[in-house]
Amino acid sequence: MTDPVLSHLLSDREGFVTRLRDLVACPSVSTDPGYRDGMAAARRWLIARLDRLGFHDAREIGAGGHPAVTAHWHGAGPAQPTLLVYGHYDVQPPDPAEAWASPPFELTARNGRLHARGVSDDKGPMLLAVETLGAFLAAEGRLPVNVTLLLEGEEEMGSASLPAILRAHRGALAADAVLSADGARWRADLPTMTVATRGNTAMEFSVRTAAKDLHSGRYGGVARNALHEMARLVASLHDAEGNIAVAGFADGATPPSDADRAMLGAIPFDVAAHDASIGTSSGLSTPGFLERLWLRPTLDANGMWGGYTGAGGKTVIPAEAHAKLSMRLVPGQDPARCVEAVAAHLRAHCPPGVELAIRPTRDGTRAYAVPEAHPLLLAAEGALEATVGTKPLRVRMGATLPLTDIVRGLLGIDTVMFSFATADEDFHAPNENWRESAIAEGFAAWVALIRRCGALTRADLAPFRRA
Amino acid sequence: MTDPVLSHLLSDREGFVTRLRDLVACPSVSTDPGYRDGMAAARRWLIARLDRLGFHDAREIGAGGHPAVTAHWHGAGPAQPTLLVYGHYDVQPPDPAEAWASPPFELTARNGRLHARGVSDDKGPMLLAVETLGAFLAAEGRLPVNVTLLLEGEEEMGSASLPAILRAHRGALAADAVLSADGARWRADLPTMTVATRGNTAMEFSVRTAAKDLHSGRYGGVARNALHEMARLVASLHDAEGNIAVAGFADGATPPSDADRAMLGAIPFDVAAHDASIGTSSGLSTPGFLERLWLRPTLDANGMWGGYTGAGGKTVIPAEAHAKLSMRLVPGQDPARCVEAVAAHLRAHCPPGVELAIRPTRDGTRAYAVPEAHPLLLAAEGALEATVGTKPLRVRMGATLPLTDIVRGLLGIDTVMFSFATADEDFHAPNENWRESAIAEGFAAWVALIRRCGALTRADLAPFRRA
Repeated sequence: MTDPVLSHLLSDREGFVTRLRDLVACPSVSTDPGYRDGMAAARRWLIARLDRLGFHDAREIGAGGHPAVTAHWHGAGPAQPTLLVYGHYDVQPPDPAEAWASPPFELTARNGRLHARGVSDDKGPMLLAVETLGAFLAAEGRLPVNVTLLLEGEEEMGSASLPAILRAHRGALAADAVLSADGARWRADLPTMTVATRGNTAMEFSVRTAAKDLHSGRYGGVARNALHEMARLVASLHDAEGNIAVAGFADGATPPSDADRAMLGAIPFDVAAHDASIGTSSGLSTPGFLERLWLRPTLDANGMWGGYTGAGGKTVIPAEAHAKLSMRLVPGQDPARCVEAVAAHLRAHCPPGVELAIRPTRDGTRAYAVPEAHPLLLAAEGALEATVGTKPLRVRMGATLPLTDIVRGLLGIDTVMFSFATADEDFHAPNENWRESAIAEGFAAWVALIRRCGALTRADLAPFRRA
Repeated sequence: MTDPVLSHLLSDREGFVTRLRDLVACPSVSTDPGYRDGMAAARRWLIARLDRLGFHDAREIGAGGHPAVTAHWHGAGPAQPTLLVYGHYDVQPPDPAEAWASPPFELTARNGRLHARGVSDDKGPMLLAVETLGAFLAAEGRLPVNVTLLLEGEEEMGSASLPAILRAHRGALAADAVLSADGARWRADLPTMTVATRGNTAMEFSVRTAAKDLHSGRYGGVARNALHEMARLVASLHDAEGNIAVAGFADGATPPSDADRAMLGAIPFDVAAHDASIGTSSGLSTPGFLERLWLRPTLDANGMWGGYTGAGGKTVIPAEAHAKLSMRLVPGQDPARCVEAVAAHLRAHCPPGVELAIRPTRDGTRAYAVPEAHPLLLAAEGALEATVGTKPLRVRMGATLPLTDIVRGLLGIDTVMFSFATADEDFHAPNENWRESAIAEGFAAWVALIRRCGALTRADLAPFRRA
């Protein structure tokens, strides 16, 4: 006997796709001020939909940046937990537009996938959550758990004002745990639960070796070259094996344990196929590969430039050079201390006579892991197992979800990722797409999870809250 | 009593500046195909001017690249030598455009200097030669020496097709010596004759580490970063003291002799003031400084780039990175062998799994020295002494004049540099400028030199020709 809420959802699958089409048609690019109208249109659409679905007090809440959309249904009673259900309505820029096979803001079905900017990250997965919760209200007049929706508008710009929003609306957003519709599944071929993310932070630096660019003939041999100094500094960040060579960078970092390594060794993963898919040859074993991807920090130059970069040649000794660096962090690393360790390394390795300017570029996010016994995690695993027939494998993620760190710090609660996007869906790239099969899978899993949440009490979650 | 030719020139100093303004307004950047129209405009302007001044057969001569402009006046008689008077009408790119205080292709007077791209290198000095020679025809109806003008269009790209032009027009360009309006004076405070130049050559290379740029979270730790590989390769080119660390690079190079060092020690030069003028601190003595500048080879990165270089951050692992290198060479070094030594070094230092692509970009120029007793050199020294009142000091130059090597090889003749640019005029950099005082100085010295050339015969120059 099919669940009545699931029946309600599946009977209107076409309606869901139509609504998703309307939502992706709002070009809500948060990083580019030129899309301000698209951002506002997406918020209006969401507020109208939440209102119609029966949520209360659907509205914008902001703190100087792009507002979030919020709404709630708190009728399950005071003994029941409150879930903060998270998604984000902002999307990456569509550039390069000419690389899209169909217009980026027109939902287009092709080969079993729906294509549009934001369809996978995060409008499709977010709408799954919204519509499922609404379907409980429609089919049964109630939800088995109290719910506050928080649909952010700045995820693609590092959740810049999310901390301020949480501080300003601490009362309205109070909850026992976060259930996130964002944070993609690792793979399509293996049911997984992502239980940990790396943190991140970033910085830029510049070197200057002279007051101005100099002619390589008239000064060559007697003036320092900023590119040589930059190359030396960037090269000094790693040793010959590619390990980070920055003193203090790993201070406090939790090294992978034997148990971690055993866990990694048990995961079916084809390193050679992965390497081939991106045209590389890592030469790593599966556990070695996953350890480097999930349990080790990274320090990457994302950009480096200086001197003449146009067509042909220019015999110049560049006076300045620039680099952008970012890091992925593991549990125990503090973003600000990592930036300071890299800054200290650069200062120590910068020779006299070379001017060094360092600019931290963001606050950074700590690594995150949901507690292994968190009742919401267990409920989510149970829901997935019930709907796909296999107990999902716990996996980690090399990427970062700033939300996790922010809500743990400000609200003292944990986040469980329950997304029906998959990592291969080209989000942040042209031709972003979302598997059509994720709709039915997502409906079933979300219904199963919300039912299981009805069996949880606030007391069950209390031990995991750090007010 | 003032020389009538000099009087003629000085009476139309404003006309000279107006013509220079028109010439620099032609944006004749040879290295960038986007400036093709500016190149053609500069040629049209020069041909019209040469024609009007009374030179014969003013026209373009080319050999596949940017054509040169040529014209001649051969009325001095067969016993008189023929001088190949050289200049170049092409200029360096104006980048970075935003660093200019006035538009790069608008002649702008400021603080006793004229500013524009190419004003010092080489349009101003070239126009001094053209106008002085023309003034002889205007004031006296003849020149005391036979003259062929050769105004090149590819000096800033290593004179790529100049050899082919000389081969194709060997008869028309036959001469007894070259008198070059290019090759700047060392300093404004000391009359000098530049008697030797370093050679040069250039190359580009790229590294590729993956088929496409990768997300730093989803691939960080398991994919190579092209910028890290590039930094390592560029850093490997020099040792910790800045000496070139490329095996075979210095093969054949003539080391500085004790006599060279004694000569350098006798030159009045204030290293600290030079350092201060460009915002550096070389920490070198005068002979050590001049040895590195004139008698030692260099290897400089002129540009290096890869990854995201725009505003804000992008958490990307770049799949490719690029660098442009150029070298300055001393007597005994062969340009092609130097490029091959650097290429071999890069191949040897490039780790497995990193794709390396190397592109030599020009044939290169050997170092050059004019014979110490060359009659044209002595005449030029005499002309300078007569006009500035002091015997000029013979000095060398760290920069390169490809012409010297090419005409010695193909025409068997020597080159005397007689330029009224000065090395501190920011050629190849933003805000290139030229001292307004160089105009009157240059007119006087050119007139004095051409008069002295009237006392030379072909027989005087014959011993220096190597046909």
